[in-house]
Amino acid sequence: MNTGTMDTDIFESHESEVMSYARSFPVVFDQAKGSYLYDENGKEYIDFLAGAGTLNYGHNNPVLKEKLMEYIQRDGIVHGLDMHTAAKREFMDTFYETILKPRDMDHVMQFTGPTGTNAVEAALKIARNIKGRENIISFTNGFHGVSLGALAATGNSHHRGVAGVTMGGVTPMPYDGYLGDAFDTTEYLDKVLGDSSSGVDHPAAVIVETVQGEGGINAASFDWLRNLEKVCRKHDMLLILDDIQAGCGRTGSFFSFDDIGISPDIITLSKSLSGYGLPFAMVLMKPELDLWKPGEHNGTFRGHNLAFVTAAAALNHYWRDDKFAKEVQKKADIITDHFREIANSYDSHWFYLNGRGMMQGLVARDGEVAGEITKACFKRQLVIETSGADDQVIKTLCPLTISEEDLVRALEIVKESVDEVMTDRIKRGEAHSVASITA
Amino acid sequence: MNTGTMDTDIFESHESEVMSYARSFPVVFDQAKGSYLYDENGKEYIDFLAGAGTLNYGHNNPVLKEKLMEYIQRDGIVHGLDMHTAAKREFMDTFYETILKPRDMDHVMQFTGPTGTNAVEAALKIARNIKGRENIISFTNGFHGVSLGALAATGNSHHRGVAGVTMGGVTPMPYDGYLGDAFDTTEYLDKVLGDSSSGVDHPAAVIVETVQGEGGINAASFDWLRNLEKVCRKHDMLLILDDIQAGCGRTGSFFSFDDIGISPDIITLSKSLSGYGLPFAMVLMKPELDLWKPGEHNGTFRGHNLAFVTAAAALNHYWRDDKFAKEVQKKADIITDHFREIANSYDSHWFYLNGRGMMQGLVARDGEVAGEITKACFKRQLVIETSGADDQVIKTLCPLTISEEDLVRALEIVKESVDEVMTDRIKRGEAHSVASITA
Amino acid sequence: MNTGTMDTDIFESHESEVMSYARSFPVVFDQAKGSYLYDENGKEYIDFLAGAGTLNYGHNNPVLKEKLMEYIQRDGIVHGLDMHTAAKREFMDTFYETILKPRDMDHVMQFTGPTGTNAVEAALKIARNIKGRENIISFTNGFHGVSLGALAATGNSHHRGVAGVTMGGVTPMPYDGYLGDAFDTTEYLDKVLGDSSSGVDHPAAVIVETVQGEGGINAASFDWLRNLEKVCRKHDMLLILDDIQAGCGRTGSFFSFDDIGISPDIITLSKSLSGYGLPFAMVLMKPELDLWKPGEHNGTFRGHNLAFVTAAAALNHYWRDDKFAKEVQKKADIITDHFREIANSYDSHWFYLNGRGMMQGLVARDGEVAGEITKACFKRQLVIETSGADDQVIKTLCPLTISEEDLVRALEIVKESVDEVMTDRIKRGEAHSVASITA
Amino acid sequence: MNTGTMDTDIFESHESEVMSYARSFPVVFDQAKGSYLYDENGKEYIDFLAGAGTLNYGHNNPVLKEKLMEYIQRDGIVHGLDMHTAAKREFMDTFYETILKPRDMDHVMQFTGPTGTNAVEAALKIARNIKGRENIISFTNGFHGVSLGALAATGNSHHRGVAGVTMGGVTPMPYDGYLGDAFDTTEYLDKVLGDSSSGVDHPAAVIVETVQGEGGINAASFDWLRNLEKVCRKHDMLLILDDIQAGCGRTGSFFSFDDIGISPDIITLSKSLSGYGLPFAMVLMKPELDLWKPGEHNGTFRGHNLAFVTAAAALNHYWRDDKFAKEVQKKADIITDHFREIANSYDSHWFYLNGRGMMQGLVARDGEVAGEITKACFKRQLVIETSGADDQVIKTLCPLTISEEDLVRALEIVKESVDEVMTDRIKRGEAHSVASITA
Repeated sequence: MNTGTMDTDIFESHESEVMSYARSFPVVFDQAKGSYLYDENGKEYIDFLAGAGTLNYGHNNPVLKEKLMEYIQRDGIVHGLDMHTAAKREFMDTFYETILKPRDMDHVMQFTGPTGTNAVEAALKIARNIKGRENIISFTNGFHGVSLGALAATGNSHHRGVAGVTMGGVTPMPYDGYLGDAFDTTEYLDKVLGDSSSGVDHPAAVIVETVQGEGGINAASFDWLRNLEKVCRKHDMLLILDDIQAGCGRTGSFFSFDDIGISPDIITLSKSLSGYGLPFAMVLMKPELDLWKPGEHNGTFRGHNLAFVTAAAALNHYWRDDKFAKEVQKKADIITDHFREIANSYDSHWFYLNGRGMMQGLVARDGEVAGEITKACFKRQLVIETSGADDQVIKTLCPLTISEEDLVRALEIVKESVDEVMTDRIKRGEAHSVASITA
Repeated sequence: MNTGTMDTDIFESHESEVMSYARSFPVVFDQAKGSYLYDENGKEYIDFLAGAGTLNYGHNNPVLKEKLMEYIQRDGIVHGLDMHTAAKREFMDTFYETILKPRDMDHVMQFTGPTGTNAVEAALKIARNIKGRENIISFTNGFHGVSLGALAATGNSHHRGVAGVTMGGVTPMPYDGYLGDAFDTTEYLDKVLGDSSSGVDHPAAVIVETVQGEGGINAASFDWLRNLEKVCRKHDMLLILDDIQAGCGRTGSFFSFDDIGISPDIITLSKSLSGYGLPFAMVLMKPELDLWKPGEHNGTFRGHNLAFVTAAAALNHYWRDDKFAKEVQKKADIITDHFREIANSYDSHWFYLNGRGMMQGLVARDGEVAGEITKACFKRQLVIETSGADDQVIKTLCPLTISEEDLVRALEIVKESVDEVMTDRIKRGEAHSVASITA
Repeated sequence: MNTGTMDTDIFESHESEVMSYARSFPVVFDQAKGSYLYDENGKEYIDFLAGAGTLNYGHNNPVLKEKLMEYIQRDGIVHGLDMHTAAKREFMDTFYETILKPRDMDHVMQFTGPTGTNAVEAALKIARNIKGRENIISFTNGFHGVSLGALAATGNSHHRGVAGVTMGGVTPMPYDGYLGDAFDTTEYLDKVLGDSSSGVDHPAAVIVETVQGEGGINAASFDWLRNLEKVCRKHDMLLILDDIQAGCGRTGSFFSFDDIGISPDIITLSKSLSGYGLPFAMVLMKPELDLWKPGEHNGTFRGHNLAFVTAAAALNHYWRDDKFAKEVQKKADIITDHFREIANSYDSHWFYLNGRGMMQGLVARDGEVAGEITKACFKRQLVIETSGADDQVIKTLCPLTISEEDLVRALEIVKESVDEVMTDRIKRGEAHSVASITA
Repeated sequence: MNTGTMDTDIFESHESEVMSYARSFPVVFDQAKGSYLYDENGKEYIDFLAGAGTLNYGHNNPVLKEKLMEYIQRDGIVHGLDMHTAAKREFMDTFYETILKPRDMDHVMQFTGPTGTNAVEAALKIARNIKGRENIISFTNGFHGVSLGALAATGNSHHRGVAGVTMGGVTPMPYDGYLGDAFDTTEYLDKVLGDSSSGVDHPAAVIVETVQGEGGINAASFDWLRNLEKVCRKHDMLLILDDIQAGCGRTGSFFSFDDIGISPDIITLSKSLSGYGLPFAMVLMKPELDLWKPGEHNGTFRGHNLAFVTAAAALNHYWRDDKFAKEVQKKADIITDHFREIANSYDSHWFYLNGRGMMQGLVARDGEVAGEITKACFKRQLVIETSGADDQVIKTLCPLTISEEDLVRALEIVKESVDEVMTDRIKRGEAHSVASITA
């Protein structure tokens, strides 16, 4: 790794090979603010990765920072297991007032260990115990975490391959669009569930993302999600909506399912929930599902008070009216316009768009092209990553708070990088620019 | 719940029933400092629970607090996935210098999701993949977390009972002392492993705590641990030492195994690692075991930069020499003395001591007595909890930094509470004070 | 149960409730010959169940009987574990000469415990160990047995529901036609296997029936089976063909896949293999797969010498030339003609045909109608059963050796029974006879 | 393999490598009668293996043979699935009259697929479904079959190693004597079951053999078995007694537990149940456990009519009075006397005895010695095998009907073979004959 004058010795000698992102961005970062990362030489980078969707309100958001500093300063309790604290009460009151009540939702809140995978583990336990059944329906290209229970519901073979034991109790089903546009895959699900001899045991629940982040920024259609809920009701299964990456505003509303007209039984939240990059996770469940006995699912860091503080601040600042949501939608359009322009610049098999809101992907023909593009972006001081089964999707996960100016600047970097990467392919006759075609 | 004038409405209406500690300590805490918790009315409590062993350096330790405030103030990067950061480098350098190098250890560091259970999940994956075997030996009364992979190695039926799927790949074996003092249970382990027809599949590893925290403050003897390591070497298994609760100084040395003369292949750390109650976890593994491929085990909050900052500060402040360790040992003796006095005050079947260092337990005859005692302590403004299969063990997990004066004061509260609880039993003729016996 | 003057006391008092067929045919059978069953009062029944496909050569076939009697009479060894016996050699020589050699097959023979499910268990072990992978692809409505390993690959929830533990390591996929005629389900299989993020772990093998007996007499098309084999080759998986019910001549050739142009890696045989209803099972595997170590898969009754004797006799008598196969095909056409006539007699949604060779099904609209019909058949002294997820398929599994006269007689009974059952429905206006429609 | 003039080509070219016993006894057997096997050259061998305990009444027992021939001759129904047949009724009536009624047992009979492993699979399903729990306690060195469900309860790593998937839901515990004579291992079992944090989930049942055949002819003491039953009752678990090898008279009474005073909830029988080496298995269960739904556990060959015929004949002939049982006991003493004499002839670490009734083992110091001895026996025309984890136990499983003369002759062959094998060791100074020691 060449990191110029930066000292990376200890990483090379004593960090496990499991480390991944630093391979793509081989510098030592030191500070961050809003949409910018700064390496230790002070060089700035626009951040289109944003903690893989954890920094929806930007790095070190000043509104949240102030509350955080104040709380630490006055020796607010930091670690209290799941004891009552004033900070927790403040968060819960705020979450209820700003999020649940306006939606007529009466879900109760469970604070699990502060990671998404832990929230998913809890959600699966709830579903299995409530229904007294083992099986869970997951979807192709879904990602729900890598602890063993969540991993069973995760599609990625890179992660599944190191489980080391048989993972039972989950049946993968095709996500929206997986069998072609003409085929509503919920019909297949309905069929196997209605067929007593299909080999698919009656599930306790389905677990689904409305937009699959790690799986390639695949956005399910609203119709498909509504049909999925119908299948759940018909076959007496719970609908678990994993909103860890797509939630907290990423798609333009607080929950990614807000405008769809579905009513998930269980919702998992994490990533941007604290708003400040602090580890935090929560499970929401309909009250009738809350049959937990005290401490049955526990963990040392459940209920992280610093996160309660910043999360409440974020809710108060961004979600008391619809102003923020509208901004997000506007920026989403800007991304779409730029990506469409890129895609339209080349023969049609090279690029297409997917995603929803500010969770968009520019899908390249293959992972090689996509990888070259993100590398070229990084040279231009844009941190951006790929996802998808073959790492073929260049994904935007920039802060929702990014200025339009920075957003456009970053998208232009993407465009330049695409053009650079495609130039050689055009020269080699592998690709054609539309300009040359139409000329 | 009677919390006086404190408002607990939202907890009652919208927090999941899974909540547990707040049931024992039904107040709303607000601030904390050193060994003290303060409820929102300003009432102070000595904290002998300390985040279940997470606050070895006390609440909001001023040394760490200063570094933390400074870092946040200057917009140090908070969330950077597993990218290189200056804070991470500082932590790794410090950990290497203060902990690994003096012990001639060359383990590499893996930063998993910031919970103990996640570190255990990673450790089990490493072991299973390195050895190409499924089975893991766990021990009776062991606790390693509640995500599905870790749960399989956890003894507690309260947690196991909600798994919802068959947990395979782990064989529980009797911990030190389980079959009586005369029986070295590593011999039984050795026998089943040497017996090709025992039904215990050749394990990849054993996972063990030197002192079982949740399991009842059971301390394994040094001989037993050394024999266990020999069995591991003989049968080509890895030794995973889960030092999440017993590590970071709790037993009087940084690692709980420092003075034993064993060399664990994999070590899991969490709880007090950040020193400030911030979620943080790390897996240490011998370099030859580090065959991870990039990102195989991942997670959004792996590598929490605020925790890097406080953890490095803690290491620098407490572990550059042996002063702190000696203090811990001295306080450990104070605890032992007080507990012994309590135990000696009643007929011998009522109480006995176990544990090691500042991880000690006063084992009551049953969970009912223990529960009454901790309740009586709380009335006297001491937060203290029980553990063990029947909640029969009153455990000290107070900050290691507690002043001797506070320590003695708290132990006297325990003594008074025991006496109160036993008074009725003496009256009913169920118990006798030794004074009355010897009189 | 009313069985007239027959004594059934002990069945009622001391046979487990698991008993099933005797509920449909509540008489006490005593003798059997060819296509006929005789109850203990001497009443005769045509047998269209034939041991669920076990009696392809009829009950107590005289050619086999002679050999069997002779062998027992001369004290031929009956039980010899898997030691060499003259009877075993004779069977193996004959099987090689009559079946393998003419087909240029070089599969080796493994004699497992004498049940189909045991052969399937062995086949799955071979596949998993050869490929070093866990996952097996099974198909909707497949049936492979009820011991735990085979049960995991069986679709039927009635059987799956009593497993009592999580069954992992098998992924069910849609069988031919499951997603409609337009959709080749092997394409879906190919897609999930080519998608590293589908959640379907790389399988060791697929296990498939060419005609699903218990699943409803569903016959896969030859194209689909050929495509399935291609998918297996492309993704380096073994093709396990479970020919337990469809093999031994049932579809008109010895193996059900003889005319398809595929080359299964592993083949399971049982049911009619002994030819006399004697328990017997065999796994055929390509020689390069035979990496078994001695006794790794064992069982007391592997290699049943009486079955070797009758099986060799059956092969010698029926499979030295193609005469028998041609007879089967002729009778298959008779069945088809009669079933088509029945189906064409009513509005089209009432009945349709499926199956292949002498393994045919008359699919009724629902299980209720089908059940009434088989009941009506039994009153007319025809033993015939249903299968399928809803027991909606009236299936012919009569001896292949049945005389054309008896076959026609039995099919006429079916016709009469259908007409009887439909009469009421026509009266109630639920159904219409085509005659009335076209009139 | 040298089989003299016998043709073994087809075995070498086309039998799977899984074949095992023919490796020890490399001849081609053809006929058998009583205690004798005859190879195809007419050479006779005494059979001390007897189908691994399947031929308790000898090969081709004339009493049974007559009934069998008669039944086949008159075209008695051979295969009838689980339909009522006169032969089945006769067997059930006889079993009830001769076995159940005299013991005041009211167990119902389930006829599973005709193998021991299938009976075990059914028994485990019953237990798990009745109790609604997954876990089953098995014992070290236990053997219950190799289909996946039974394999999970089998100790042998040779068989377990090829499972290919994680086998969950069974916890192995130490059998009687495993932790030394002073330690009653049921106390350990009781302790883990009473300990809510032991990691051993509350089991549905234990499965146990009174004498472990494959595991090395280990006979549990009556006290241990009685204590085991007490533990079952205390912890609300079923007691499954696997009497497949030890039952049907092998230990001197019909059930191996007849004289112990325990009342197993579920009993599995197979091996010698048919009496003629015909595949046959039965599960007995207390009537209140018979909650099976029709056909939930099925199989093509459940209820094998030829086996019903011979089994009924065996019960009628041998078990209407106690004459046979007494003969068995007398012969058992003869075996013990001879084995004791052998063991006493050498320094004490070379041989010792174990087992019960006519299921006895001469335990050699190691498998090498034992193997040499059985080889030397075979040269002397005695077929005898080893068992145990290291194949160190020379086991007697001769027909119970063997004449005393033949029994003595065979035991003398064992003695001669031992002496031959030990001669070299004495010469090399590794062993000493007691004669020389005492001289």
